[in-house]
Amino acid sequence: MLSANELKHLSALKVKKYREETRLFIAEGVKQVDEGVRSRYQCDLIVFRPDARDEIRDILNIASKKGIKCEEVKAKELERLSDTVNTQGVIGYFRMPHLSAVDCNLPVLVYLDRINDPGNLGTIIRTADWFGFRDILLSPGCVDVFNPKVVRASMGSIFRGVFHPETGIELLTRLKKEGYSVITTELEGTDLKRYRPAGKSIIVLSSESHGVLPELASLADARVKIPGVKGAESLNVAVAAGIILHKLFETGTGK
Amino acid sequence: MLSANELKHLSALKVKKYREETRLFIAEGVKQVDEGVRSRYQCDLIVFRPDARDEIRDILNIASKKGIKCEEVKAKELERLSDTVNTQGVIGYFRMPHLSAVDCNLPVLVYLDRINDPGNLGTIIRTADWFGFRDILLSPGCVDVFNPKVVRASMGSIFRGVFHPETGIELLTRLKKEGYSVITTELEGTDLKRYRPAGKSIIVLSSESHGVLPELASLADARVKIPGVKGAESLNVAVAAGIILHKLFETGTGK
Repeated sequence: MLSANELKHLSALKVKKYREETRLFIAEGVKQVDEGVRSRYQCDLIVFRPDARDEIRDILNIASKKGIKCEEVKAKELERLSDTVNTQGVIGYFRMPHLSAVDCNLPVLVYLDRINDPGNLGTIIRTADWFGFRDILLSPGCVDVFNPKVVRASMGSIFRGVFHPETGIELLTRLKKEGYSVITTELEGTDLKRYRPAGKSIIVLSSESHGVLPELASLADARVKIPGVKGAESLNVAVAAGIILHKLFETGTGK
Repeated sequence: MLSANELKHLSALKVKKYREETRLFIAEGVKQVDEGVRSRYQCDLIVFRPDARDEIRDILNIASKKGIKCEEVKAKELERLSDTVNTQGVIGYFRMPHLSAVDCNLPVLVYLDRINDPGNLGTIIRTADWFGFRDILLSPGCVDVFNPKVVRASMGSIFRGVFHPETGIELLTRLKKEGYSVITTELEGTDLKRYRPAGKSIIVLSSESHGVLPELASLADARVKIPGVKGAESLNVAVAAGIILHKLFETGTGK
């Protein structure tokens, strides 16, 4: 049984500052916890509801074999710990990985420029994972990678990504010296159809409401655009990410 | 000033059944209301908060010129009418368009198979609009197109789309007789890279959790897949939609 203090501690992990202090984060939902316990991430605790369904029992089995602590909590307590309206009845608590240096041998790096919507960030992480682009650089102003909503939207891909938060212009400039080209997505760019990636690339994805940061635009070696018809508004940044990363994958840049 | 009864009526439009009875729907937020008043849709009413910012004042100006009723409401009242946590302070009430028959001369029709997440549906509508594919067929089991969350996620594209809800297998079978090919997205399909669309196409997008409905799979003339690396989970359906619709646009199918 968890004490009142323990419950308070776990609930506080919804707050970024407390996550950073404790280096712990929340992964909620069957798919997320399942991927988490199978990953290289260290899981400190799993909590579940008394009426846990079979899928959750399966996760608890694997977790027990790995020596992970599993605690049944009351439905009301789980609701308090949960970050969702309709909880699936299982939450895992994981240790954040140590930061590592960017691997300069990777053919593609993804740079996220002020993506502040957690659903979009999680979906981009999931999409990048699908295409095998797992090193993700995040500018200051991006939402926290370990925000519970980001983790949830990533559908488990968070456990396969390698993240470099607070990456500024300085690091990008250094990466350019290591042979990377910086590619931004802009309305006035080259049609994606005609764009041929060459060599190591850093793909910059900017939130559609902010556009590309000027300091970043001045670093660009190439500018691409996703063509569309007149009159339409814009593309969601996660959809744009999908189209561009698919193009890189298709042209073999990521292999 | 709006009466208590009028406020109750407007608030009830968050419920699908009441929307269907009254044929009215809610578009909330600056971008949405702005696109709405400029569109072919009939706007019955706009409500706004006393502290409305300049962007909202601009919309109210256009609306007044068009003879649309605009009512200032108290901040508390607007909160009650709002469907969001942080309201932007403006909500429009629009008449649903009449249903029309599917235009069988269109090169591309989009068929949505049980897309039940409002954010995904709205994002797909926005993406289809970007590429100029405006006729969207929806299977039974899709979330209501005029759900306030769908309208919001569409970022105004809802006002440019032509929607055919509750489209079943029967209509698809008839459309095949009109010369359409049905293309589904499946894990065991042809690599999108090798797929060459030919003639009029109906693109089927199924929610990633349900897969393609068997009756629908049996109608398929072609099956495509978006390739990825091993070990990754799946793509979000709106991201998959973006990649496939971009491919159709790029190969000129939509023109």
